[in-house]
Parts: sequence; C-alpha cells; structure tokens
Amino acid sequence: MTGVVEPDVARGLTDADGITLAAAMAGAGLDPSGLGADVGLAERVAGFIELHVEQGSALGGLGAPVGVGESIWPHGRWRIDFGGRADHAGTTRLADRRDPMLPYAATVLAAREAASEFGALATMSKVRAVPGGANGICSAVQTWLDARAADEKTLESLVARVMDSARKSADQHGVTVTSRCESFTPVVEFDRDLRDRVGAALARRGVTAPVLPTGAGHDAGVLAGVVPTAMLFVRNRTGVSHSPAEHADPEDCAAGVEALAAVLEDLACR
Amino acid sequence: MTGVVEPDVARGLTDADGITLAAAMAGAGLDPSGLGADVGLAERVAGFIELHVEQGSALGGLGAPVGVGESIWPHGRWRIDFGGRADHAGTTRLADRRDPMLPYAATVLAAREAASEFGALATMSKVRAVPGGANGICSAVQTWLDARAADEKTLESLVARVMDSARKSADQHGVTVTSRCESFTPVVEFDRDLRDRVGAALARRGVTAPVLPTGAGHDAGVLAGVVPTAMLFVRNRTGVSHSPAEHADPEDCAAGVEALAAVLEDLACR
Repeated sequence: MTGVVEPDVARGLTDADGITLAAAMAGAGLDPSGLGADVGLAERVAGFIELHVEQGSALGGLGAPVGVGESIWPHGRWRIDFGGRADHAGTTRLADRRDPMLPYAATVLAAREAASEFGALATMSKVRAVPGGANGICSAVQTWLDARAADEKTLESLVARVMDSARKSADQHGVTVTSRCESFTPVVEFDRDLRDRVGAALARRGVTAPVLPTGAGHDAGVLAGVVPTAMLFVRNRTGVSHSPAEHADPEDCAAGVEALAAVLEDLACR
Repeated sequence: MTGVVEPDVARGLTDADGITLAAAMAGAGLDPSGLGADVGLAERVAGFIELHVEQGSALGGLGAPVGVGESIWPHGRWRIDFGGRADHAGTTRLADRRDPMLPYAATVLAAREAASEFGALATMSKVRAVPGGANGICSAVQTWLDARAADEKTLESLVARVMDSARKSADQHGVTVTSRCESFTPVVEFDRDLRDRVGAALARRGVTAPVLPTGAGHDAGVLAGVVPTAMLFVRNRTGVSHSPAEHADPEDCAAGVEALAAVLEDLACR
C-alpha cells in the first residue's frame, strides 16, 4: 500500500513450504497483479493513529494506563545459511565432520554476547535442521537473526559482529555460510506535530500519557513513510508480549479506547 | 520380534506428529495387538548374517572390498527439553529473557567438546524450536543427543558430562531442562564362532576380510541378543553414510554378494 515493497518482490515472497504470495493470493481467489502502491494515499489520509498493547513494562513502572509512541527502533531480519555435509552420527570421526550445527550454536551465543555489548537486542529463535534426523549429521542449518538497536549505526555494527562470528566458526568446521537481509526497517520517529496534538488532547481530559520508544515493528511504522502517524500504548500487566502471558486489564483497554476516541474527536473537530 | 521392546511401549511410540505406532498400524490395515516377541525364534533360526555397506572408510584404507563385523559400539539417544518463556524479540530486555535457545546452543558445543575429550562420538542434529518464529523468543527447544563410545562406562561419562553442561547453562538463563533416554543399545560383540566360520569360508575362496568394529546400529545388533549374528561390510568409496554422497562400486557390491553366498553355502553344507 505504501509502495515500500516492490510488487514483484512481494509476489515472490515464499512461506515455509515454498508457496509464493502470488500463488497463495490466486489460491484464495485474489488477483496478485493488483498489488502495488495506493497512489494518492498521502492526499486522502490526514493521519493514522494505532492503538496497541505495550510490549514491555514501562507503563506498568510509571503507573500509567496509557502512553504515546515516540519512535520505533531500527530493526531487521537476516537469514543465515550454514552448509555442511550429511553423514552418519555413529561412524563419522569428529575430525572428518562438517557439521553445520556447531557454527550455528556458536553464532547463537555470539549474537547474545554482541547484543549485550552494544546495549541492543539480538534473537535467534527460528532454526531448521536439514534433514534433521537424530542419528545423522545435518547437511544444512538455516536460521534467522532478529536484531534491533536504538540507532542504525549500532544496529549495523551488531549485525557485522554476528556475521563475523558466524564466518569464523563456520571456517573452523569446514562449513559454508551465506547470509542476506530479508527485511530492514529504518528508525521511525513518529510525526512530532501529531504526537503533540495527541498529548494535548489527552491532557485536556486529565490523562497524563508518558512518551515511549518501542523496539517492535508496527503498521504505524510502515505508514509513517507516507502519512503522519502516532501510536497509543495500553499498559501490559506482565510486560510479556507475543506469548499467552501477555495481559492488559479490561479497565486499561477501556482507557486506551477512550484515549483513541478523544484523539480522533480532537483531530476531526479542532 | 526379539522381545527387547515391550509391546505396550512399542505401540505407544509416537512420530513427529504425535501419531502412535498403534494408530499408524491400524491406519495401514495391520493389527497392533499382534506385536510381541517371536517365541521360539532362537530354536528356529541358526544364525543371521547381515550384509551392509561400510559406514566409514576403514576398508578403503585397507584396500579390501569386504570386511567382517567385530562389534557394535554401545550407543543411545537422549531427548533433552529446554523450557523458557515466549516473549517479543523487539521489546524484551536481555536481562528479562528466559531464552531456551541459549542453553541449547551451549549444550551443542559442550557435547562436541566432551566427545572429543572422551574419544567418543556425540551428535545433536535434531532440534525443534517452539513456536520458532523469527521475531519471538522461544518458549521451548526440544533436541536429541546421539552418543556412542567404545565401551559403556565411557558412554555413561560422556552423557553425564553433556547433561551437566545442559543443566548449568539452563540455570544461568532461567530455563528448565529435563532429559530422558529414548533408546539405549549396549555393546554388541558378534558371535565369535560364527565370525570365525565367516572368516574361514571367505579365506577358502581366497578373500581376506579385515575384522572391523562399527559405531552404527544394525538389525544384527538387535538380533544378537537372541540368535548368533555376524556382519559383512562392503567398501564405501567415500566413507560417507546416510547421505547422497554414500557410494559403493558395483564390483564391491558383487564381492559382498559373493561373500554372503559363500558364507551361507558353508553354513548350510558343513
């Protein structure tokens, strides 16, 4: 819709089974040729306000049911492929192995260490062992690095450090390694005018909403490139996100809805 | 057939999708209640000779197309479960994480180091990250350790060392760890009388067959508990096994068949 992703690139994206978005759309009765930027979006849409549960515990610490978004950390996802040689686990001497699981493991630990050193975040949670049987050495290990930092220079240094560790460890084990960036979102500073209007609208109703950065990607972050966007966060009692433990109290959800309504009314009427 | 596995245990074994052997058998039109030891097997079967491609390169090094099995290293498979907490990769501070991928990675490296120290084999090639999305910390990582050694005492020490490393690393990251032995095969010494008769039958035909141990499990290893068993190995040109790179020359395969025929003739006629 924003044109950030080229239609051809989008159509060629594949899921875990190798199904392209184009094939999945066609299978669902949709026309993949219709993908592409919504021309004139910026002229038709005055602003976008996204209401979302906080994905951390900052509002809980501040005792505030509702907060306003300041920025989104730059973040990205890198795919890393380690290529080794399939072999029998019971007959292949350690010295003869080219086991891709070993540099994978070293890279998982290196990513954590680098994130700690740079005051940033690195996560490796998706892994595919090929063929992945218990009694055979893998021919390949595919994994993904999720990395985020407060600024793009730090993020770049973090990723370079992880890739360097991956290469060194792969070399030690006679394993190949390739990597590519699958997605990258630069830092997003939400529109300052819109953010101030959101804050003022809430203040007029007696709501003090702290201003928070976030490390998570959001629709508002993508739309920020085309239209003014802002975010409202609702307190998350556990601070846990993308997990069954995520929880917002009903009263806080209601406070979030009231805040959104107040902001929309203000934007429409003033 | 040998009774080594209790029928109830066998019926309850599950595949990666949780399908039990009993359900799979019933689905294929077989009666799972028929599982169980073949009573009288030892009386009806005088011996079992297994012909197999060598799963290493010993015969290649010795310039021999055919070899005779001496023993099978004791070996087993242990399942290890790391339990952490699902969280958002972009919003959860490193200090707040309970990421099971980290102790998994540390254990992979510890297993390799322990195997090297004990002159044994340890392989971790099967891993399931749950839920395994790129942008979320895993709630659990399930993995399997394949371990083998020349004797059971060494194997026991190796596995104890790996489990100790797993526990220590899991503790460091606030992650739980449980393990259980899924299969264990004690050392198998093939029947010495039968092995000598195999060697003599080959020698009479001018074939010098070196005697080799193996780290791989085989049908002959299981049957060895009930009937006399022996193994014949055919030279593997690459030494690679359980891989598309595994290769035996047609002439070597023919030499293996001729050796098996000679041995069977000898056993039947002398």
